[in-house]
Amino acid sequence: MAKRGMLIVLSGPSGVGKGTVRKAIFEQKDNDFQYSISMTTRQPRNGEVNGEDYFFVSKSDFEDKIAHGQMLEYAKYVDNYYGTPLQYVNQTLDSGKDVFLEIEVNGARQVREKMPDGVFIFLTPPDLVELKQRIINRGTEDMATIDKRMGKAVDEIKTMRDYDYAVVNDDLVVAVDEIKNIIKGEHLRVTRVYPEYQEMLGEL
Amino acid sequence: MAKRGMLIVLSGPSGVGKGTVRKAIFEQKDNDFQYSISMTTRQPRNGEVNGEDYFFVSKSDFEDKIAHGQMLEYAKYVDNYYGTPLQYVNQTLDSGKDVFLEIEVNGARQVREKMPDGVFIFLTPPDLVELKQRIINRGTEDMATIDKRMGKAVDEIKTMRDYDYAVVNDDLVVAVDEIKNIIKGEHLRVTRVYPEYQEMLGEL
Repeated sequence: MAKRGMLIVLSGPSGVGKGTVRKAIFEQKDNDFQYSISMTTRQPRNGEVNGEDYFFVSKSDFEDKIAHGQMLEYAKYVDNYYGTPLQYVNQTLDSGKDVFLEIEVNGARQVREKMPDGVFIFLTPPDLVELKQRIINRGTEDMATIDKRMGKAVDEIKTMRDYDYAVVNDDLVVAVDEIKNIIKGEHLRVTRVYPEYQEMLGEL
Repeated sequence: MAKRGMLIVLSGPSGVGKGTVRKAIFEQKDNDFQYSISMTTRQPRNGEVNGEDYFFVSKSDFEDKIAHGQMLEYAKYVDNYYGTPLQYVNQTLDSGKDVFLEIEVNGARQVREKMPDGVFIFLTPPDLVELKQRIINRGTEDMATIDKRMGKAVDEIKTMRDYDYAVVNDDLVVAVDEIKNIIKGEHLRVTRVYPEYQEMLGEL
């Protein structure tokens, strides 16, 4: 049996740029890990492909998966579910390959409870003023909504304490490099490799 | 006040090649950390320079430092003391610079007790047959001594469990790269950076 892969979770406050960083990581072709595609009940947007951007399923299918413990994490936004199907993650890990999740902080908390051995990386804004500016620059929200989101961001940043690593999303190239660096380093942690050495010592 | 530097400890069984790896790391000029020079009571060998290879001191000076708690770790081999002076390490860490120690496993255990926040990296042989061959190749020991050293090596490899990371010394370039990678990643650990974020959140 292959050595089980490592679960990598990238999270951080809304608006910090998790999606951009994740895409930049997967544009590089030297990755040894598999991106876990989320499942959602929302309608595909223009150009979105089922099985690439998301797994698009019906509400009843999604609720059925929740009821059967088949979601590693999930959340409901407005009227739609978003989440990570457990089976795909477990199959990939069992095959020996690492799995990379990019999810919201609530989802990350759920994953930490179920898979505490994962590597949890928190993406942070360089500062909160900068974060506010990014949300404003999107131009999709009014000021009341922005203030509400900022309060949420502060609460979310405080959850950093429950993560293993913190990466600042200031320079995209640096952030991508740091995340890949963390993943390489984690593979060398004694807690992950010691079983192999026990085998080596057992050969004597 | 500068943020205190990080202590990095490279150790591993006798004969694994700690010194070679350490020298290869310090031949690179892009390191952000300072090598901590050991102190010894043995005589300088041909070409060894005081303050570069070792700090060469008298036996009474060394024992005086032990008595005053001024050695971070030390050991006695045959009739000579070897160890790490505490003051130099603390001064360098206080200035914000990381300190790199390359020491025996007994010394590493002493350092772990005094500075548990350090990054402890264990250098391992690819396998024990290979380790035995390396010791034989040195040509400085007879077989009885080699067997005794092998037993010691097995005991030493078991101490790996007390370390944070394990790096295999198979390919020197890979080992050096992995160690530098570990050091970079450790700087991103939440336990090390969270105080800075608390400050950021306090600014609101």
